[in-house]
Amino acid sequence: MSAHPLDPATPEEIQRATDLVKAAYAGVPLHFKAAGLEEPPKAQMVEYLDAEHNNRPLPYMPRCVFLIWYIKRTPRLFEAIVDVTGNQIVHHVELPRDFHGPVDRTEMNEAAQVVMADPRVKEEIKRLKIDDTTVVLDPWDYGVDGTETQERHTQVFMYMRNPDNNDPDSNHYCFPLDFMVIVDLCAMKVKKIIRLPLGADASTTAGQNVPHRRTNPYEAEYDHRLQKNPPRTTMKPYQVVQPEGASFTVTGHLIEWEKWRFRVGFNWREGLTLHDLSFDGTSAFYRLSLSEMFVPYGDPRNPIYRKGAFDLGNVGAGVTANNLQLGCDCLGMIKYIDGCVVAADGTPAPRPNAICIHEVDNGIQWKHTNHRTGKATVVRKRQLVLQTIITVANYEYIFMWYFDQSGEITFETRATGILSTQPIGEKVKVPWGARVADGVMAPYHQHLFNLRIDPAVGGHLNSFASTDSVAIDWDEELNPLGTGYITQQTILDRAGHVEDDISKGRVFKILNENIENPVSLTPIGYKLVPLRSQLLLAKPGTWHDRRSEFCEHSIWVTKHKDRQLFPAGDYTNQSLGGTGIKSWLAQGRDVVRNQDIVIWHTFGFTHNPRTEDFPIMPAEIGQVHLKPYNFALYNPTNDVPPSNQAFNQSTEYKPAADAQTSSCCIRGNL
Amino acid sequence: MSAHPLDPATPEEIQRATDLVKAAYAGVPLHFKAAGLEEPPKAQMVEYLDAEHNNRPLPYMPRCVFLIWYIKRTPRLFEAIVDVTGNQIVHHVELPRDFHGPVDRTEMNEAAQVVMADPRVKEEIKRLKIDDTTVVLDPWDYGVDGTETQERHTQVFMYMRNPDNNDPDSNHYCFPLDFMVIVDLCAMKVKKIIRLPLGADASTTAGQNVPHRRTNPYEAEYDHRLQKNPPRTTMKPYQVVQPEGASFTVTGHLIEWEKWRFRVGFNWREGLTLHDLSFDGTSAFYRLSLSEMFVPYGDPRNPIYRKGAFDLGNVGAGVTANNLQLGCDCLGMIKYIDGCVVAADGTPAPRPNAICIHEVDNGIQWKHTNHRTGKATVVRKRQLVLQTIITVANYEYIFMWYFDQSGEITFETRATGILSTQPIGEKVKVPWGARVADGVMAPYHQHLFNLRIDPAVGGHLNSFASTDSVAIDWDEELNPLGTGYITQQTILDRAGHVEDDISKGRVFKILNENIENPVSLTPIGYKLVPLRSQLLLAKPGTWHDRRSEFCEHSIWVTKHKDRQLFPAGDYTNQSLGGTGIKSWLAQGRDVVRNQDIVIWHTFGFTHNPRTEDFPIMPAEIGQVHLKPYNFALYNPTNDVPPSNQAFNQSTEYKPAADAQTSSCCIRGNL
Repeated sequence: MSAHPLDPATPEEIQRATDLVKAAYAGVPLHFKAAGLEEPPKAQMVEYLDAEHNNRPLPYMPRCVFLIWYIKRTPRLFEAIVDVTGNQIVHHVELPRDFHGPVDRTEMNEAAQVVMADPRVKEEIKRLKIDDTTVVLDPWDYGVDGTETQERHTQVFMYMRNPDNNDPDSNHYCFPLDFMVIVDLCAMKVKKIIRLPLGADASTTAGQNVPHRRTNPYEAEYDHRLQKNPPRTTMKPYQVVQPEGASFTVTGHLIEWEKWRFRVGFNWREGLTLHDLSFDGTSAFYRLSLSEMFVPYGDPRNPIYRKGAFDLGNVGAGVTANNLQLGCDCLGMIKYIDGCVVAADGTPAPRPNAICIHEVDNGIQWKHTNHRTGKATVVRKRQLVLQTIITVANYEYIFMWYFDQSGEITFETRATGILSTQPIGEKVKVPWGARVADGVMAPYHQHLFNLRIDPAVGGHLNSFASTDSVAIDWDEELNPLGTGYITQQTILDRAGHVEDDISKGRVFKILNENIENPVSLTPIGYKLVPLRSQLLLAKPGTWHDRRSEFCEHSIWVTKHKDRQLFPAGDYTNQSLGGTGIKSWLAQGRDVVRNQDIVIWHTFGFTHNPRTEDFPIMPAEIGQVHLKPYNFALYNPTNDVPPSNQAFNQSTEYKPAADAQTSSCCIRGNL
Repeated sequence: MSAHPLDPATPEEIQRATDLVKAAYAGVPLHFKAAGLEEPPKAQMVEYLDAEHNNRPLPYMPRCVFLIWYIKRTPRLFEAIVDVTGNQIVHHVELPRDFHGPVDRTEMNEAAQVVMADPRVKEEIKRLKIDDTTVVLDPWDYGVDGTETQERHTQVFMYMRNPDNNDPDSNHYCFPLDFMVIVDLCAMKVKKIIRLPLGADASTTAGQNVPHRRTNPYEAEYDHRLQKNPPRTTMKPYQVVQPEGASFTVTGHLIEWEKWRFRVGFNWREGLTLHDLSFDGTSAFYRLSLSEMFVPYGDPRNPIYRKGAFDLGNVGAGVTANNLQLGCDCLGMIKYIDGCVVAADGTPAPRPNAICIHEVDNGIQWKHTNHRTGKATVVRKRQLVLQTIITVANYEYIFMWYFDQSGEITFETRATGILSTQPIGEKVKVPWGARVADGVMAPYHQHLFNLRIDPAVGGHLNSFASTDSVAIDWDEELNPLGTGYITQQTILDRAGHVEDDISKGRVFKILNENIENPVSLTPIGYKLVPLRSQLLLAKPGTWHDRRSEFCEHSIWVTKHKDRQLFPAGDYTNQSLGGTGIKSWLAQGRDVVRNQDIVIWHTFGFTHNPRTEDFPIMPAEIGQVHLKPYNFALYNPTNDVPPSNQAFNQSTEYKPAADAQTSSCCIRGNL
């Protein structure tokens, strides 16, 4: 049973790879940071897929695993590619000392223990007159301030459990302490303790009584247990029943559903990836993935100015993938796919149920009533959803790929979880943060995502076009009433970024200029519908800015290059910048018209918290769409059977027996 | 059983109103155009609602019906308000001759018969060598070209049925004829026949063989009947089961669901309206409605330059409301609400099942996993949906109001139905339209909607704020790493429009400056998340521009005035402009800070058709959100019970017995 070259690395492959690396180091203790499939170079992969699609003999393709590790408790960082088919290390290099590997739970837990054992920390806890068994630590990846850039750090924010119950699952973000700790990860020692400002300026105090919020942990049942705010009982069950099973098939990592065919991948960094996507027999995309995200905070003061997390590069969407549970994270009939990453000791670390696949009904796809005959036809909008959820300390991100019967793909991000909080003095207001509870301030911050779109619209040679809708000038002959408008299309010649302009109704298209749609007489294409967002707020030249190169523009286009996958660079943790998409472009602007191109779309949320976002945050939802644009000859859902009651089995609302059924106003007649 | 003052006009009330009007005209034949509830003046209504909410005795409130009619076959247009409680006409006026009433099906059908009986039309049909029994007419509301503005017109576009089957339900938009007809509605005679251009300029020909598309009617079962393209059989049933019933209650027109309480209204023009909305016991909005829409076409040539439809003011979202069917238009447990409009003869014209109400599950509302204990908590996102669907000739619009447990309201528009098409010569391309089938061109056009938001956030005195997120200047003390940002809020003082700026992360808020949220220490509010859109493309000074005043800006704020409901004016059909929101503002700019204000949001789609939009169009979806912003003390979904399998009853995917279940690639191993 041979794996497909795009299947994720298996536990056995990861074990084999770390065994081979360990053997090469003969007894030197290693700390593994990351391991996952090294995808084959595109040229080889295209050849393979071409053979696969055409049922020709498949070329040989070794399975390779990419790894990152440290020599334990040192700053010496290495990466390698191991051919686990041929059992050999094919790439192996030590990284420069300014490069740092991602964080991991093992190291974070060690750091937390070191913090709690430190006498200066004990002194701080004593100062606050709290029981140290209630203290909870939130170790974070360390930002950059330009000093000691070659040392490895973590920054640990300090909280306490709800003092009323000391419940390990109480929401400690309701109880932020007024100090934090920086740990040197090589020495594995506390390096510095920093007091947090409680007022509206940068000054700090040695106050003992930081006001704490005493109410509303995030989960209703806690309150219920405390005899406060019992969960509501008004919500009746809502179940999705699929009596004949699901409409999709999953064969290994190959998904087929309603004219769609694609492969699902998984790795430690991007989590869910999508490959070799075709719709109705025509190639559409080579690879789709969330490539990076950056979360800079807006409180300008020490130590918050170092809060700026690359949650993919610094931690990993695969590493933090939730174990999705039947009946909790989705409704209906669910298929789960497991992932695997690596533990610090080099053993495989399974991520069970990391991806779930299910169908949803998203209302009406199309409808028309012929008013002459009264005949109405409705087709419903069935979608296939692939979902993965990550937990990065306080925050959760839900990433969803929707496949629509119409050929549309939607990438949806839901930002949820818990705000990262700081203490704040009574009645104090700050212009860079919001009070979300008594004594609790949530600093403003941004979530900036980058979606990497490697298109293959009808093949690998594609172009990127911006199309505006513009009014025609008044003209006695051509535009006598001044009502006309036309489209003007610009095709990008050289790699770079593309400007947006809503006032021109700008539409972004990926075109295959080599294939004409015989109906429209224009190139086949896919439209990118961006999520229009504010970009990075940090000043040009700041560390935030230098490190998050992709956050400077909303849409970038580059020529495809193998291993150019991460637009803030391969090593983002404590990074100094200079290795991301802007730096690639500074090296030269390739021709991108009718080439193998990649589109990078940066979007996000400027999140200035509301009280409604606490103690846990209702998901903030953003969507990016890819829609066929003269890709098909006609509406791809033309053959979906019309919606009918025999199929759908809906029921008519009957008011409860005790409810008033008259049309008068109850209260009005009292 | 007395109606609530905001309940829609009943059939009996409409009958009584037209009886009273007819009696006043003693035998003069009248043609009724519209009738519906005349809502009470706001000052009275506020007093009534205040009494209702506080269980005090209710003030007397007469029920009134607003009517529009013509003296039959004349341009004499009248409006009246009839008190159907007191049986008296309280307002009665003849409109100026440049004002025109909405179109109606009766009159359109008469016009169609007149067209088909006209010898010149017969001659045109003969020229095309087609069977006149296959000809289908699409009468439209008439645009304006500045001539004969006091005459009443309709413009009739000409099509034919699929000649292969002459099926009355074939998609005639696949077969556009090359001429159209203008009818004088008072004389009820053909006034003019206009040939459509088939080339890329304004010239027309007397061609006999306009190429027709012979394939792909919009509904799969037609093809099936013709033994072509049978409907797909891949889609398995997907049913929503609510074993304990719905979570909402409907009492007359009062809806209560998950902390929401509001009333649903209905009238001939806006269709569905919402009133007196409160969330968790606090007032949020007085009235919400889609107030108008405009659909101008971009083909600059005669006669297309007259295509510019106000689908609400010229036709009516209530008049065209679909009769929604169980198991077709929604899943789950559905409550239907009927509407009623008026027939040309003054009798009530019921609109059964004009509104449907049901719940949906929209994925995850919030989730958090405590990585220390492994405990995950998920709360699902249940929503209540009110849906109404209108058919305006070729197009359908689906309007949905989503109420979320988090306090959010989403207004969603789905544009579907069939493109309005024109014939086009073989291989001809035009810059103002798209070829969507052989011989079929769909001109570019825009759909511009206006949402009227009459807020009552914590009461009726509200303000409108624009809040930007802006970087702080570098500062050794305050912003040493250049990472900080703050918010800057501007509150609108005078009525007018408000500019958008995505680059500043601009957020629009409705605030009640008289009520401070004790947690955030800022005013309670609701955020408007606009749908950022291109605005009107027609040149300034065009009839399209003068008539569609609301299309000049995206967000307008006015002081509330009774009967200012329609931002393109009360009478939009063949209108000359000068009666919409821009004209109101030209009369003076009221103070709007801490006043009873109304927000008008214009948004829409520039629709340059794709081949995928034909022969029927997958819904183009747009959403506008209203989100609580420091309105509640904490997350309103905090008490929603966590999601669990006992409640949700999901199932795990099992591959079909005949499917391959290994993880290898099927095709790869052939």
